[in-house]
Amino acid sequence: MKLLVDERDVKFVLYEQLHVEELCKHPRYQDFSEDMFDMAIEQAEKLAEREFYPTNRKGDLEGCRFEEGRVMVPECFHEPYRLYCEGGWLAISDSPEVGGQGFPMSIANACMEFFGAANWALFMYPGLTHGAARLLENYGSPKLKDLYLHKMFSGEWAGTMCLTESGAGTDVGNLRSKASRNPDGTFNISGQKIFISSGMHDLTENIVHMVLARIEGAPKGVKGISIFLVPRLRYDEKGKLVDNDVNCAGIEHKMGIHGSATCALNFGERSDCVGYLLGQENGGMRIMFEMMNEARLFVGMQGLSHAGTAYLHALRYARERLQGAPAERMKDPDSPRVPIIQHPDVRRMLMFMKSSTEGLRALLYLAAYCIDRVRIAENRDEKDVFQGYVDLLIPICKSMGSDLGFRVCETAVQVYGGYGYCCEYPVEQFLRDCKISSIYEGTNGIQALDLVGRKLTLKHGQLFKNAMQSMSGILNKIEKNFHLRELVQIYKEAQESLIQVTKFFALKGMTDEFHIPLLYAKPYLDLCGEVTIGFLLLWQAHLADRRLREIYKDHKAENEAAQRKLLDENRSAAFYYGKTASARFFIHQVLTQVGGKARAIMNNDKSALEIPEYGFALD
Amino acid sequence: MKLLVDERDVKFVLYEQLHVEELCKHPRYQDFSEDMFDMAIEQAEKLAEREFYPTNRKGDLEGCRFEEGRVMVPECFHEPYRLYCEGGWLAISDSPEVGGQGFPMSIANACMEFFGAANWALFMYPGLTHGAARLLENYGSPKLKDLYLHKMFSGEWAGTMCLTESGAGTDVGNLRSKASRNPDGTFNISGQKIFISSGMHDLTENIVHMVLARIEGAPKGVKGISIFLVPRLRYDEKGKLVDNDVNCAGIEHKMGIHGSATCALNFGERSDCVGYLLGQENGGMRIMFEMMNEARLFVGMQGLSHAGTAYLHALRYARERLQGAPAERMKDPDSPRVPIIQHPDVRRMLMFMKSSTEGLRALLYLAAYCIDRVRIAENRDEKDVFQGYVDLLIPICKSMGSDLGFRVCETAVQVYGGYGYCCEYPVEQFLRDCKISSIYEGTNGIQALDLVGRKLTLKHGQLFKNAMQSMSGILNKIEKNFHLRELVQIYKEAQESLIQVTKFFALKGMTDEFHIPLLYAKPYLDLCGEVTIGFLLLWQAHLADRRLREIYKDHKAENEAAQRKLLDENRSAAFYYGKTASARFFIHQVLTQVGGKARAIMNNDKSALEIPEYGFALD
Repeated sequence: MKLLVDERDVKFVLYEQLHVEELCKHPRYQDFSEDMFDMAIEQAEKLAEREFYPTNRKGDLEGCRFEEGRVMVPECFHEPYRLYCEGGWLAISDSPEVGGQGFPMSIANACMEFFGAANWALFMYPGLTHGAARLLENYGSPKLKDLYLHKMFSGEWAGTMCLTESGAGTDVGNLRSKASRNPDGTFNISGQKIFISSGMHDLTENIVHMVLARIEGAPKGVKGISIFLVPRLRYDEKGKLVDNDVNCAGIEHKMGIHGSATCALNFGERSDCVGYLLGQENGGMRIMFEMMNEARLFVGMQGLSHAGTAYLHALRYARERLQGAPAERMKDPDSPRVPIIQHPDVRRMLMFMKSSTEGLRALLYLAAYCIDRVRIAENRDEKDVFQGYVDLLIPICKSMGSDLGFRVCETAVQVYGGYGYCCEYPVEQFLRDCKISSIYEGTNGIQALDLVGRKLTLKHGQLFKNAMQSMSGILNKIEKNFHLRELVQIYKEAQESLIQVTKFFALKGMTDEFHIPLLYAKPYLDLCGEVTIGFLLLWQAHLADRRLREIYKDHKAENEAAQRKLLDENRSAAFYYGKTASARFFIHQVLTQVGGKARAIMNNDKSALEIPEYGFALD
Repeated sequence: MKLLVDERDVKFVLYEQLHVEELCKHPRYQDFSEDMFDMAIEQAEKLAEREFYPTNRKGDLEGCRFEEGRVMVPECFHEPYRLYCEGGWLAISDSPEVGGQGFPMSIANACMEFFGAANWALFMYPGLTHGAARLLENYGSPKLKDLYLHKMFSGEWAGTMCLTESGAGTDVGNLRSKASRNPDGTFNISGQKIFISSGMHDLTENIVHMVLARIEGAPKGVKGISIFLVPRLRYDEKGKLVDNDVNCAGIEHKMGIHGSATCALNFGERSDCVGYLLGQENGGMRIMFEMMNEARLFVGMQGLSHAGTAYLHALRYARERLQGAPAERMKDPDSPRVPIIQHPDVRRMLMFMKSSTEGLRALLYLAAYCIDRVRIAENRDEKDVFQGYVDLLIPICKSMGSDLGFRVCETAVQVYGGYGYCCEYPVEQFLRDCKISSIYEGTNGIQALDLVGRKLTLKHGQLFKNAMQSMSGILNKIEKNFHLRELVQIYKEAQESLIQVTKFFALKGMTDEFHIPLLYAKPYLDLCGEVTIGFLLLWQAHLADRRLREIYKDHKAENEAAQRKLLDENRSAAFYYGKTASARFFIHQVLTQVGGKARAIMNNDKSALEIPEYGFALD
């Protein structure tokens, strides 16, 4: 069986739920068709399966090496990286003007899931290059773009984002890297950055860094930060590539993503590091914020990618691994051994993995689709509405993708039992690789503050109201489906709880108890994520249930026995039934807890704030 | 600050909650005193801190090596192992007759937390030896005991438990290892065992294996399993130590506990492996079940040990790491940077870790204490009651210890941020090391089946009723404390939900819907764990609150301002306040969700059972 991505579900989300094929009606995508979308996904799957996946474990074992200032990625990464670039994958959703293929984000995102699932550590190199290239595209001078942009979008050169310093991670405003003006309008950059993914490596000849630094004399804090393009090799006056003063001081040894080089970089050790300003002076933070959505969606996709492949691996294992007798004959030593998928506890774990993965897929694909809708919006209002969805969804995608994705990987290890803990089997690597996703690109705590402190307060809460309203519209249709009545009921209770907490936060935010929303921002984000995923799965169940009943009808399966028989024989029926099962499981098992979680927040429990310093521990 | 175990909390549980010092009134422990208990704990701490902890990371990096059939543990393990044995730690709670020190389990268990926190991989060697020695003590012939027992309890020789085979892990009844009778009453053992912790290593000259195998002609399944003592070096007729035919086929490369040798063992490759029957023929499973409590408590202690030290490490980091401005001055670049413990989101994570760790500590120490009470019970009834508590608590200890312990380790990584993912810092190892605990000694799914399928049904549910009754007795006292009224209310609702689910299971178990309790056994176990921990923390809060009010009174701190001031200055007050804060946090944040979780179980959602094979994925 396929082990990377459940392709059928990908198609379901794209064409049956979001109807991304309708994007082709818009002039921007008029040269595309559903067939072309499918072809791209098929090609991505092929490359991911044949070239990326086989290097996943090798890359984990070999890791990156740091020798005499140089960083070598796992040897086996070179060929798939070359093929990826050759296939034009890096710029699949970018404009043909910059060498891109111009696909919608929705499709690029679906392709991304395959590459990410196959080898995340490898996929990070082009992924980060893409983010850096987009920044250059949006904020670089025509000359800078001429020199660097095509080579980045083609993957010939790589790119990075250099934000973090040892005292300035989450608190980026505290950074110390400096930029001093040169007479020719360039800047001299100096400082040390840490945790720079792909900061130095041998996949490409050149690496183009996007570096946050403070221009001499600039204001303190985030208001004085500018962003610079700092290539490892720069062009001199004669257009010759020469060394720029960017050096790697070392790489981190990490729990996972061993194939991804996490570097400490020194800029300007010899005071000879040239940087080129991007955008306005002191406008670095605004630019970073604009670029952050893509990076955070990317990390959310990591969680989904790991979750999806962890689920499929665990499913295959559960189907093949014989152990134990069926529940009915548990004490009968003559009973045949059965595949462990027949044991209720294992099925419960698989259903958790399935429904979580499908929920995350719907969530992340929806975010990508909303980005497409922003791009093709016909007017300001439409654009604002979809940009609002994106803004709300991004912290949820990043945080839920990483947290729930990790939980799914953990469950995969559990399904494998002792084997799941052994490096010989793939799932333990997924768990280790996945763990970073809750930390980088803004910890999940920061995502929660972004949601509660920024997104909810924008336009007096209009983003949240818009989202709820658009969900109501769809919900009205679903409510008419008699079969889903119970699920709709549970969903509505959960949604109501979420609304209550949102109002509670809005009130507290205006009083001197504003610490309460800060304290419970992360549990609140989790609630938002669960309710959103519950909604998306309910919506899917509605669509699937309609299709299922059509199939029953086509096959004249009128009673339960006939329907069960059909489900065992007809894969299409089984698929749609599986979709309704995902919704039932998630809504029954997760959304029933939303009310209690809301109460946990609204109880006004301040124990964590009030405990004195030595209450945590005596010394 | 101390980084292994919160010693103050250990003392609180032992002397203020469980009053283990009263065990000294019993003849069995009359030679002991609270001072002696304290001294033992102090010594354990010293050895753990000075000798075990410094080898933790080294052992992780170096791992075990397998060369030409031999297994070498990390070099640095030898000296602390020697000191541990020399100190008589292995048999601290065993009878002086076998060379033990005769301490209560409660105290042995507390000492265990220090060693486990300091270096779990190392601690497993003597830990497993102890289990094997206990089995020999209980079921070996006097001659076998003469030959092997003292050397095992002293740690001169090591021991293992050999259950798992490649097709028989969870399904132990399916094992294929064979025993054939020799004329002299011994047996010839043959078969292959996998995942044998400490199966082969160079810490000791000899390793004594306890091996499950089937005697030729024995019944199929669990009823035909016997248990044998199979030493790597056995005594020949002349009393000389000679090679027994036990060989190591290899070791596993694992996510964590790299210093613990997980071996595949071949017995009887040359048909020259002698084993000695322990207990009755075909009585192996009964014996294993009796010995399992100790092993499962041990694994629960692993979770607690990792959680406790992960919490303290994260706490120290949060106190030292400066980043960001306080919430009040978030946008002020001139604000001083503060330790991250001042950020509400970090405090919330720390409180989760603190309350979970303290809850687990209370739970696991209570189990050990009940074992002590079984040992000194004055009559059959008393013995039965305490044995009933033990039987109920063990699966909860094992599963909650490992699952909640893992969650605490995960949170520690999150508190460290990017550093948490780097091997240079200790918490990523805790996470990797801890993960195995939900798998070995019976996966947590098996623990849940043990609880639901065995323990709940024993004596028509009497165990559960007894437990609830004894909790009610304590609860009646707590209810009188006005300050805890709200917590008591939430607790009682949660307890009521648990009782409802228990009744629901009992009803379902008697119908053809008996799959439902199997399906939700694990979520039910989690509920039991949460309610039990909630209860223990509430009880602690009651005790702490009384002490706190005494301190307020002694210091004439009558109003809130005076009390806050005292809390900042008086460490004893701070500690007791911290205990009440733990209860408030856990009960508000966790127990409020019990009702929803109960509903999730009782909704009768059978999606996981009803989904057709191809509904999980199409191929």
